[in-house]
Amino acid sequence: MASEIRTSTVEAQIGDALEDWAKAVQAKDIAGIVAHYAPDIVAYDAVLALAFEGLEAYRAHWEACFTMCEGPMLFELHEPCIAADGNVAFCHCLVRCGGVGADGKEHTGWMRMTACYRRTNGRWLIVHEHFSVPFDMSTGKALMELQPRQSVALGAA
Amino acid sequence: MASEIRTSTVEAQIGDALEDWAKAVQAKDIAGIVAHYAPDIVAYDAVLALAFEGLEAYRAHWEACFTMCEGPMLFELHEPCIAADGNVAFCHCLVRCGGVGADGKEHTGWMRMTACYRRTNGRWLIVHEHFSVPFDMSTGKALMELQPRQSVALGAA
Repeated sequence: MASEIRTSTVEAQIGDALEDWAKAVQAKDIAGIVAHYAPDIVAYDAVLALAFEGLEAYRAHWEACFTMCEGPMLFELHEPCIAADGNVAFCHCLVRCGGVGADGKEHTGWMRMTACYRRTNGRWLIVHEHFSVPFDMSTGKALMELQPRQSVALGAA
Repeated sequence: MASEIRTSTVEAQIGDALEDWAKAVQAKDIAGIVAHYAPDIVAYDAVLALAFEGLEAYRAHWEACFTMCEGPMLFELHEPCIAADGNVAFCHCLVRCGGVGADGKEHTGWMRMTACYRRTNGRWLIVHEHFSVPFDMSTGKALMELQPRQSVALGAA
């Protein structure tokens, strides 16, 4: 029982950290985003490179991405699943993200996110982050229109 | 010191489990692969759907993928980074994977992998797996040719 309480408390801490980070993304607040990252973070983002190694490289990538997205930012975490024990934790969820175009319309798609945390000196920091969009094997194209619980056929044209 | 020894022992267990799983992938041994998965695994694979929920759905996906890949399977984990504490662990690495075509030549590309474990009844099982390939924002195409430490320009044609 004591162990359950301890674990659930730790998972609640991760939930709070995750929510705080997501709010920073919604606000395009770079300092608020990177405050959650460890100096030696290894990030696999959805675009451009296999990996971004270290806080400075990943911060620069966030800055570059935000210059591509004008207007309000949409970034909603859906039902994060969190596991934590001791000083190690991870969570994963689908993310609905996008923006509001010059036409005033929402342009959104779904991504997948995994975030892995370590607690150092009492602080939970993300040491590894993985964002992605699946692709269609027949076209090589990222499946930006895919909805949760929907799939395309393997090898379909 | 005791804590360090305990942690490093647990991380070695995860390393062994990961190696065993990778060997099963190389051998296209479905039973050996899914023996490492928890019944309620949530997997984000590189292709077709946002998520595969539950062992049976993910097993069927592995089977379908192997029917697409004839000949010997290449699947090499590069320098996995592992963190573990108590009954929770995660690891991530780049993966060189592909196959040998009918022409006898290797056709390989790089992917990213994150695997998250929980220990239940003394067994470490993967409860979440995330595979992906980044895409090019200008073309929407998966970047199958990308090498480690290489990137394309943001918004480049």
